[in-house]
Amino acid sequence: MGDLLGVAVLGVGHMGADHIRRLDRVVSGARIAAVADPDLASAKEAVAGLDGVSVHPDPEAALDAPGVQAVLIASPGPAHEEALLAAFARGLPVLCEKPMVPDSVGALRVVEAEARLGRRLAQIGFMRRYDAEYRRLKSLLDDGRLGRPLMLHCTHRNVSSPPGFTSAMLINSSVSHEIDAARWLLGQELTAVTVLRPRPAAGAPEGLLDPQFVLFETEGGALVDVEVFVNCGFGYQVRCEAVCEAGSARIGDEHSMLVTTRGTAGEEVPQDYLVRFADAYDREVQSWVDATRRGQVTGPSAWDGYAASAVAEAGVRALESGDRTTVDLARRPDLYA
Amino acid sequence: MGDLLGVAVLGVGHMGADHIRRLDRVVSGARIAAVADPDLASAKEAVAGLDGVSVHPDPEAALDAPGVQAVLIASPGPAHEEALLAAFARGLPVLCEKPMVPDSVGALRVVEAEARLGRRLAQIGFMRRYDAEYRRLKSLLDDGRLGRPLMLHCTHRNVSSPPGFTSAMLINSSVSHEIDAARWLLGQELTAVTVLRPRPAAGAPEGLLDPQFVLFETEGGALVDVEVFVNCGFGYQVRCEAVCEAGSARIGDEHSMLVTTRGTAGEEVPQDYLVRFADAYDREVQSWVDATRRGQVTGPSAWDGYAASAVAEAGVRALESGDRTTVDLARRPDLYA
Amino acid sequence: MGDLLGVAVLGVGHMGADHIRRLDRVVSGARIAAVADPDLASAKEAVAGLDGVSVHPDPEAALDAPGVQAVLIASPGPAHEEALLAAFARGLPVLCEKPMVPDSVGALRVVEAEARLGRRLAQIGFMRRYDAEYRRLKSLLDDGRLGRPLMLHCTHRNVSSPPGFTSAMLINSSVSHEIDAARWLLGQELTAVTVLRPRPAAGAPEGLLDPQFVLFETEGGALVDVEVFVNCGFGYQVRCEAVCEAGSARIGDEHSMLVTTRGTAGEEVPQDYLVRFADAYDREVQSWVDATRRGQVTGPSAWDGYAASAVAEAGVRALESGDRTTVDLARRPDLYA
Amino acid sequence: MGDLLGVAVLGVGHMGADHIRRLDRVVSGARIAAVADPDLASAKEAVAGLDGVSVHPDPEAALDAPGVQAVLIASPGPAHEEALLAAFARGLPVLCEKPMVPDSVGALRVVEAEARLGRRLAQIGFMRRYDAEYRRLKSLLDDGRLGRPLMLHCTHRNVSSPPGFTSAMLINSSVSHEIDAARWLLGQELTAVTVLRPRPAAGAPEGLLDPQFVLFETEGGALVDVEVFVNCGFGYQVRCEAVCEAGSARIGDEHSMLVTTRGTAGEEVPQDYLVRFADAYDREVQSWVDATRRGQVTGPSAWDGYAASAVAEAGVRALESGDRTTVDLARRPDLYA
Repeated sequence: MGDLLGVAVLGVGHMGADHIRRLDRVVSGARIAAVADPDLASAKEAVAGLDGVSVHPDPEAALDAPGVQAVLIASPGPAHEEALLAAFARGLPVLCEKPMVPDSVGALRVVEAEARLGRRLAQIGFMRRYDAEYRRLKSLLDDGRLGRPLMLHCTHRNVSSPPGFTSAMLINSSVSHEIDAARWLLGQELTAVTVLRPRPAAGAPEGLLDPQFVLFETEGGALVDVEVFVNCGFGYQVRCEAVCEAGSARIGDEHSMLVTTRGTAGEEVPQDYLVRFADAYDREVQSWVDATRRGQVTGPSAWDGYAASAVAEAGVRALESGDRTTVDLARRPDLYA
Repeated sequence: MGDLLGVAVLGVGHMGADHIRRLDRVVSGARIAAVADPDLASAKEAVAGLDGVSVHPDPEAALDAPGVQAVLIASPGPAHEEALLAAFARGLPVLCEKPMVPDSVGALRVVEAEARLGRRLAQIGFMRRYDAEYRRLKSLLDDGRLGRPLMLHCTHRNVSSPPGFTSAMLINSSVSHEIDAARWLLGQELTAVTVLRPRPAAGAPEGLLDPQFVLFETEGGALVDVEVFVNCGFGYQVRCEAVCEAGSARIGDEHSMLVTTRGTAGEEVPQDYLVRFADAYDREVQSWVDATRRGQVTGPSAWDGYAASAVAEAGVRALESGDRTTVDLARRPDLYA
Repeated sequence: MGDLLGVAVLGVGHMGADHIRRLDRVVSGARIAAVADPDLASAKEAVAGLDGVSVHPDPEAALDAPGVQAVLIASPGPAHEEALLAAFARGLPVLCEKPMVPDSVGALRVVEAEARLGRRLAQIGFMRRYDAEYRRLKSLLDDGRLGRPLMLHCTHRNVSSPPGFTSAMLINSSVSHEIDAARWLLGQELTAVTVLRPRPAAGAPEGLLDPQFVLFETEGGALVDVEVFVNCGFGYQVRCEAVCEAGSARIGDEHSMLVTTRGTAGEEVPQDYLVRFADAYDREVQSWVDATRRGQVTGPSAWDGYAASAVAEAGVRALESGDRTTVDLARRPDLYA
Repeated sequence: MGDLLGVAVLGVGHMGADHIRRLDRVVSGARIAAVADPDLASAKEAVAGLDGVSVHPDPEAALDAPGVQAVLIASPGPAHEEALLAAFARGLPVLCEKPMVPDSVGALRVVEAEARLGRRLAQIGFMRRYDAEYRRLKSLLDDGRLGRPLMLHCTHRNVSSPPGFTSAMLINSSVSHEIDAARWLLGQELTAVTVLRPRPAAGAPEGLLDPQFVLFETEGGALVDVEVFVNCGFGYQVRCEAVCEAGSARIGDEHSMLVTTRGTAGEEVPQDYLVRFADAYDREVQSWVDATRRGQVTGPSAWDGYAASAVAEAGVRALESGDRTTVDLARRPDLYA
């Protein structure tokens, strides 16, 4: 494969630091060439012991550093648009953590900028597409054996929500994964959304509408329902059942090790997404590195990032209004056809 | 237990004939004393070989026949109201197949008649309350270990629908089971209903809206969603997941025999409700016979029958209007407190 | 079906009392006509409230009591032979709890006595043949879809053993169920047995060889292995996997209700055989009553009872010697062909 | 991590070629420095497109090639001993595919040679120790929550055996995985083995004793039984249930995606070990590369390789004799304490 791919990592927070570790120790074919973070001390600490890495307070300086051939954006969401545009300006391939851009107006600007370039540079971090179970489900739906999908029943549960988590974030942070997964699994855009609000659980922080039950309609007449419950207390569970004309398929029930003790026969439930999706993150980054070194861009596109933003925004509006809310997407540039 | 309970069976169609068999051969403590059906020949055939059974074209004549101490109503739904009132007039205990009375106005008349009597005589045939799995789920919810129920996710799938099955019948015939089960499991009345209509499956008869996705709200703020899909083609599946504040519990996944053949490890799925709920029917009738012989009435009441009718009617209206539709129940007589 | 079948129940211990309840309250078509037990007070208590039941200290007196048309033997094993022969002498149909006769010499005497009669009167209480899961497994093996069975992997676990339970009883009491089940499922006699003795569990009483691992060979070259562990502490588990030439099938994993709480997703494990096999007992007795009233005898035969004794004896010898021990069966009378 | 680790790969057959791909494209931190294979053309083809790789017909020449810092042995088993000793002579760390050395006499020579060196250089390719499920099982057994392990029930099934597969290879090729897994899970040596031979399956090649049922006894009094069935026709299944004093745990039942079609609800069964253990192979090699670059040796040792050979040999003897066969291990050098 020749030389290692020089990567600039923007942002050294939780996800950024994890990606630095992954690029250095898990993924083959890449090396960290530069990092950027306003907190210079943290940036230095994140790459301590690595050779040949330059450290910068400013993202653009990192992009211009020697040896940088690609960019991984793990800075806070509001900084993504500027970083993506800077990478585009330099012709650098990008892996950008989700959300691509938090608001759909900014997301559309990114889409339009890349469309003007006329070639794809950006891959968005919807890592479920790299999860082994989701891939098996996608493959099963695509082979047509179960017929046309009619409904997706989805569950998204977290043990507890972090401080500052808002009712809107159940949709634009948590359900955004299901938004992309549904679009990808069905190969259809989502056209309307309704949010139902059961009486909040006792375990939810005061004022947080948790759980919520979110209904999406698709351009093909399918229905996607999502239970999102971020303070369920009992585990991290991501499930998806696709109900099709000739059968149904369900992923996400953990059955890998059955433990029988007094009174129960069961399996452990992972308590964290890093446990559940560890392999998916690895595959995601590896896939990106490999494609980049071949001069290609595969995986989720900027259009996927934009569509997720747009649908999530409609979802938040539906949450606030209590009404069915349509999703209006911009025209899809030919680049993403 | 002394003498056998003399039962008059009204109606010798599919369900009536099955109940005659059950009373005669499965259930202890009962005997068939009389049957009634406008089709006298069928009625005679249904009790061929049984001693001491009188056969009548007219229900009231059967109720007045010698030895009749109780009534099992298995005639078509529109005949139920008159039969129930006739049984009430004679002070006879009744087991009445669902729907108690198809329209909620007539159902309410039955409730009021029984309330005037001042004592319960009628048990309604919601046999899921006698299913072993439902009972375990009810028991688990009642013991409080999982906390307050927030949502019920229900699935109700049939291989195919019989001729003449209408879009409304998905709700007032199929989902009526979930209506009673949800009321019973949660101990709450249902207050609103919304029906979503995904694009119909290719396997559904022309013009039938199948599947449907039905959402109920409850007086306590819980949410009940039901996928009803009566031409799914792959099996008879009834599932219910109760999502509570401290955990979830799911019934209806068939795991009793795992068969591994080339390429799959799985279980057979029953193709018929008579297979899945055979024990439940037995327990239902046995429980009724036993209680009757003790001079008691237990199990689902006329109020339960009325409430199911009323909610189903609201559901059909929601289906037709596309709108969220509230359920307005009459005041509950003290008898059913 | 005409009049109720008059049954004499011999023995009013744990099983006898349960069968009295079942005949009276669960099973249709039968009534208790007489009971016998050396402990007259207990016998009277067991039938308190039942009409028309005569109570006897002596089994033969009960058999001769008015109205007795059939016998259910639930007395201790050593009393079975005499009771069976007495029933045969009177031409009375019998349902005899297992073990039919504890020693195979006595068991063979029973077989020979019935063979001399020239017609079957006895059914032996191997109730697993009435369990829904075992029946599904038997049916699957019989239809030939999985090809010839090569191995049965069996598990038989109890929470704890009763006082006085000996190492031999793991075989002749516990594994005797697997002996009959294997013979029935495979349609083959067992020809050799080997018993392995892992180091006993800490929870086993001092001196009890628990667990044991028992290997049976069959006349057709199949292998049957049984883990028997009667102080496992965690539940009552009966499992059986049939490994065949074209697939395998496993029963006994309880999956009927999945409960998810913090850290686990699982199901309850029953703690008692009466819970697990309640339906099987009911079906067993009902089937016997029905066949008896039709003048027929179906179900496990005296030959089955004898074969179980003979194999269990060989098993105990194998346990004691540590050697592979062959099973020598008498010639099978034509009656049981 | 500094420079990439230069690896010499010996053997470019099926496994060798797969490891070359893995080192080049999956694993970070390594590069192929040299390859050796008597078939020079195949060797050249295996590294086509890779820079800086020298190709040799002779293993020792590859070990002496520039840039070689470590060795991966994937040549046929009979060549392993010489290659291991050559690596030891040069102080090179080795990852050696199983079997380390096919005969236990040669395996012991390797152990002794490494013991003379006084430091570990060799890791043996028992990749199950890197499988996520096995690691969870090991971790559960080690934490003591389930108490002392009493029995391991193992299943090892292949769809079909390759040409030339012999009855002995069911033990020394297939069951050798269970031998290492049992030793590792229990932390005990195996002391005796018995092999039972059910009548062969119709699908097994003429003359092959398939399936077999293998029983191991351990120094701690535990029992390990293995069903090995290499022409089962229905899938690749590796299962292990550990029965302990306070509970049991089972791995290997595939439940990750439940597919419901007409008449069955089930999951796909993988058809190949490369599918089932893909992650394990990756983790294995990555772990080795990482440890090697840190100057350490972790993972399965030469002693483990020797012990597996010795037990497998006893197993083959037990197969041939039909007798219980003891395993006699050499004294364990202090290096492996």
